Amino acid sequence: MEKDKKRISIAVDMDGVLADTETHFIRYYEKETGEKIDPDSMKGIPENEAFPDKTAVQRFVRMPGFFRTLPLIPGGVDAIRTLMEDFDVYIVSAAMEFPLSLFEKKEWLEEYFPFISWQHIVFCGDKRIIRTDYLIDDHLKNLDHFQGVSIMFTASHNIHYSHHQRLNNWEEIVQYFKKLC
Amino acid sequence: MEKDKKRISIAVDMDGVLADTETHFIRYYEKETGEKIDPDSMKGIPENEAFPDKTAVQRFVRMPGFFRTLPLIPGGVDAIRTLMEDFDVYIVSAAMEFPLSLFEKKEWLEEYFPFISWQHIVFCGDKRIIRTDYLIDDHLKNLDHFQGVSIMFTASHNIHYSHHQRLNNWEEIVQYFKKLC
Repeated sequence: MEKDKKRISIAVDMDGVLADTETHFIRYYEKETGEKIDPDSMKGIPENEAFPDKTAVQRFVRMPGFFRTLPLIPGGVDAIRTLMEDFDVYIVSAAMEFPLSLFEKKEWLEEYFPFISWQHIVFCGDKRIIRTDYLIDDHLKNLDHFQGVSIMFTASHNIHYSHHQRLNNWEEIVQYFKKLC
Repeated sequence: MEKDKKRISIAVDMDGVLADTETHFIRYYEKETGEKIDPDSMKGIPENEAFPDKTAVQRFVRMPGFFRTLPLIPGGVDAIRTLMEDFDVYIVSAAMEFPLSLFEKKEWLEEYFPFISWQHIVFCGDKRIIRTDYLIDDHLKNLDHFQGVSIMFTASHNIHYSHHQRLNNWEEIVQYFKKLC
């Protein structure tokens, strides 16, 4: 059975799923403007529009160092290690929009997820050409066009959508996949 | 019909298909050792083993600048532009093995293929998770596990294999796909 289980593949998004972009945006914004944004005020609002200065997010993601210094989403490292025992796990990030992020994202993964081989990392643009059985992602633009089973990882910006299976944290994700074993 | 044709997707490898790695290896080798390798002597031999110093290729691909300065395979730019009129074309490169190459490959594509959007570029490790209808590649390790239609682009190292549809140059590839329109 071990071999069959291994064949189930899971694509895991980075930003908002493994890396805590929301907290990072808030920190960058406070550092730049002195204004501390309440995370609760961001609920149900696209990230770009969640800050008084609507150009801030697009500016931050183009700053050298932004992606290299992202904090972790709690539980992600242990959960990926656990999932890898039974599934083929791929990290799939739409990194191509920001060329500077490519190397930073690779270094970030090497720091926090050194147990993931380069064979299992994908930096792409449009995720609809990814052929895995599952996709864990926080963005509709990725989940809506995925041809396997989509799992929406809860983020402030996606709380009002319900047309994908929602899981709220890495503990729930591990529980969900344990049932498939 | 236009819409249906657009749905056919083609993944195109970079090294050995769009970028002339073979010529580049020969030039690097001559620059380093003074020895000029005859391209004919490389036929049927894996790239790693085609040079007297068997460590050369693995050393060259780790040198800053190697991927940024690759020459073009003749006809590739015009062929990709032509294919994009009727198909969804994705550039899919196993760039993840050499993190330094990520930024260089992105810059190289921006120089020679500025008409390809970031949404259509994929840097990955294992290509078996790519979901396109076709894959044009020179390496068996990619073609053998692809689940769509595989097309082997002729390179010195692959001339003795015949279990994939072989096309020898970009002119033949354009002719092949024109028949699908």
